[in-house]
Amino acid sequence: MKKVVKFGGSSLASAEQFEKVGKIIRADESRRYVVPSAPGKRFSEDTKVTDLLYACYEAADDEGKFQKILEEIKARYQQIIDGLQISLSLEKEFEEVKENFKNQIGKEYAASRGEYLNGKIMAAYLGYEFVDPAEIIRFDGNGQFDAGITELLVAKKLNNIERAVVPGFYGAKENGEIKTFSRGGSDITGSILAGALDVDLYENWTDVSGVMVTDPRIIPNPKSIDTITYRELRELSYMGATVLHEDAIFPVRKAGIPINIKNTNEPEAEGTMIVEDTCKKPLYTITGIAGKKGFCSLFIEKSMMNAEIGFGRKVLQVLEEQGISFEHIPSGIDTMTVFIHQDEFAEKEQQVIAGVHRTVNPDYMELESDLALIAVVGRGMRSNRGTAARIFAALAHADVNVKMIDQGSSELNIIVGVKNEDFEVAIKALYDIFVETQI
Amino acid sequence: MKKVVKFGGSSLASAEQFEKVGKIIRADESRRYVVPSAPGKRFSEDTKVTDLLYACYEAADDEGKFQKILEEIKARYQQIIDGLQISLSLEKEFEEVKENFKNQIGKEYAASRGEYLNGKIMAAYLGYEFVDPAEIIRFDGNGQFDAGITELLVAKKLNNIERAVVPGFYGAKENGEIKTFSRGGSDITGSILAGALDVDLYENWTDVSGVMVTDPRIIPNPKSIDTITYRELRELSYMGATVLHEDAIFPVRKAGIPINIKNTNEPEAEGTMIVEDTCKKPLYTITGIAGKKGFCSLFIEKSMMNAEIGFGRKVLQVLEEQGISFEHIPSGIDTMTVFIHQDEFAEKEQQVIAGVHRTVNPDYMELESDLALIAVVGRGMRSNRGTAARIFAALAHADVNVKMIDQGSSELNIIVGVKNEDFEVAIKALYDIFVETQI
Repeated sequence: MKKVVKFGGSSLASAEQFEKVGKIIRADESRRYVVPSAPGKRFSEDTKVTDLLYACYEAADDEGKFQKILEEIKARYQQIIDGLQISLSLEKEFEEVKENFKNQIGKEYAASRGEYLNGKIMAAYLGYEFVDPAEIIRFDGNGQFDAGITELLVAKKLNNIERAVVPGFYGAKENGEIKTFSRGGSDITGSILAGALDVDLYENWTDVSGVMVTDPRIIPNPKSIDTITYRELRELSYMGATVLHEDAIFPVRKAGIPINIKNTNEPEAEGTMIVEDTCKKPLYTITGIAGKKGFCSLFIEKSMMNAEIGFGRKVLQVLEEQGISFEHIPSGIDTMTVFIHQDEFAEKEQQVIAGVHRTVNPDYMELESDLALIAVVGRGMRSNRGTAARIFAALAHADVNVKMIDQGSSELNIIVGVKNEDFEVAIKALYDIFVETQI
Repeated sequence: MKKVVKFGGSSLASAEQFEKVGKIIRADESRRYVVPSAPGKRFSEDTKVTDLLYACYEAADDEGKFQKILEEIKARYQQIIDGLQISLSLEKEFEEVKENFKNQIGKEYAASRGEYLNGKIMAAYLGYEFVDPAEIIRFDGNGQFDAGITELLVAKKLNNIERAVVPGFYGAKENGEIKTFSRGGSDITGSILAGALDVDLYENWTDVSGVMVTDPRIIPNPKSIDTITYRELRELSYMGATVLHEDAIFPVRKAGIPINIKNTNEPEAEGTMIVEDTCKKPLYTITGIAGKKGFCSLFIEKSMMNAEIGFGRKVLQVLEEQGISFEHIPSGIDTMTVFIHQDEFAEKEQQVIAGVHRTVNPDYMELESDLALIAVVGRGMRSNRGTAARIFAALAHADVNVKMIDQGSSELNIIVGVKNEDFEVAIKALYDIFVETQI
């Protein structure tokens, strides 16, 4: 049994947090490959080390400011080293960082040092071997991640090492130039290692006890989900739930490896298992509720539209020509409505309206803005016939006006459109009926 | 005040029915323009005169058969004349019909004689002037109805006639060749006259007390609708409700003239008013329920579909290239489902599947056949927030599996997809909750 374990920035923000992590790793000897992030915030007004590194790099020409920020970064790491009471000096590493920053070697290099230095501490603290991802995570000449070569390099290097620390977030081109994934990319590093090493489980340790049923900014302390499929997770993520970096799904999913989202501050909690498929019934009929504000709708009416072959295609073509993607196209008899991201649409709305007029000559068009979409997602909905009724009863009871309903044959989600101003009320009503009262 | 009154075939099938019609017309002197159909069925196994005419025309070369059918037709009319005790001979007209049938003057001419002869009787019975629509309803050289010229001809002729009978269903080209509308086309004649003469009301007399809330073949004696908008009617008609010939809407709607559907056998009933718009609340939240069987769905799944601009357009383009129109395209996250008429799709399904594969390379596709679509239609739904909840509660209670839900911004209808086998049960459940129990 072997696992890849990735720890997020808040799990590694201080010596105290490092100690929790150490305890977790030592509690299970299958936790052989450790992927640390850079130190995150220790308290809500704190600054993440990655942001300090960016600021430091930007200040390379301003000696006073540069030195001040660099000292701050050094202090953050030293505080961890001192707290852990390990004998490790990062003097040499910081000399190199300083020189490279001065030489403006690259912003991505700068950002990557947060994980690099934290990885050095982690390896020393655990007594694991330090492996620089610059050696094994490969980007091609255009800066695109190269999955094929990376998989070979990772397997070759790490299959011969019993226990290793591999910093997250970055890799390098063949010429050694450091490249990073987008922010939150340590999730991806963990997933790549898990896939390439064919481990049994990818544990992703963070500061919440798994994936929440809904957004904690709307529902304080929502329940967490025990088991979720990759597909459900993708649906919730798409609709605004933030759990894992989206690109972190593919490498493990491809290899059929489950992900376990766990909480460093509550390691005994089961967390959330993310799996390809499961017979396990979700706890609450629905698996999760997510949503986003900021959509608008373009309502198009034309007599005998339904008999006009090509009508829908032409409308979508107009959007495509303006580079706009649609979210949903509910249609009635002789009417169709296109739901679009408001920010994408805003500057092009007049071109779209003119284009639709020109190509399909509708009888009537109407724009509505400030709409939100809510997805109620769950594999359990397929076998629970009353789900739609409960959704709309809850919304009606909360006096929420339903602007759109969309449910296709997958029966894995129902998507509802409401006004932005009704968004939170709607989420609360749905959470209440499915999770709290379970009527 | 002036009205156009059109009577359907069952209202004119016998002398007894003619007498009811006479009483109706004489009861209101504004009923100045009368459009009769051909005599319909007197009992359920009876044959409509129009069908006898077709059969007679087809038998022109078979003297014995021809003569037999012609006598049958003559007898039908003579029975009406005798029953009404009017002195009218159609001898001359039948001689002309016989000659023209022998000369194979045209099938549409043959069909039109049902209305022509019935109009002769009606004019004599009422003491109204007979006007042959061949003079005033004009088709162009390609056999297409010419609305512009017809309007002028109708106004010129009928504005000088106080009371007239104008047979329905047919007109003529400029050269005199008789052309008919499609079956049920007397509705259109009435509508054209109403529009051209700018009357106050178009009364359409039939054998039901107006437009029914739902299909009487599924719900015995359903309630009738007191007031319906043109748009609601269009939606119900599109989804299978049979009330008026579809082309009968446009001429009166354009002129802003309401239609009153009335029952010849129950003339005191208010019937259904079909209007452009109304503040009148519908009796049952919903206005009507209609549906059709025989759809299939093509479910398409592709990872990251939502981020792929042009995905939906490409799928619709494949359908368009095969000449297939879609009904609905509900979409989830990374999934879309296209609902199509099964009979249109059947012979082209493999081309469509191949085309979709080629153009968008989906991860997964699935066809499901034998689906039905049900539209719950009503202007009252906009102001009744619980409507969706009631729909899905009723369906869940009836154990109906909902395969699709579609509601766009018009909020005038919700369209639900179910299995063919659940179709009647679903309609019953919806009728029950909205009309019978009104929970």
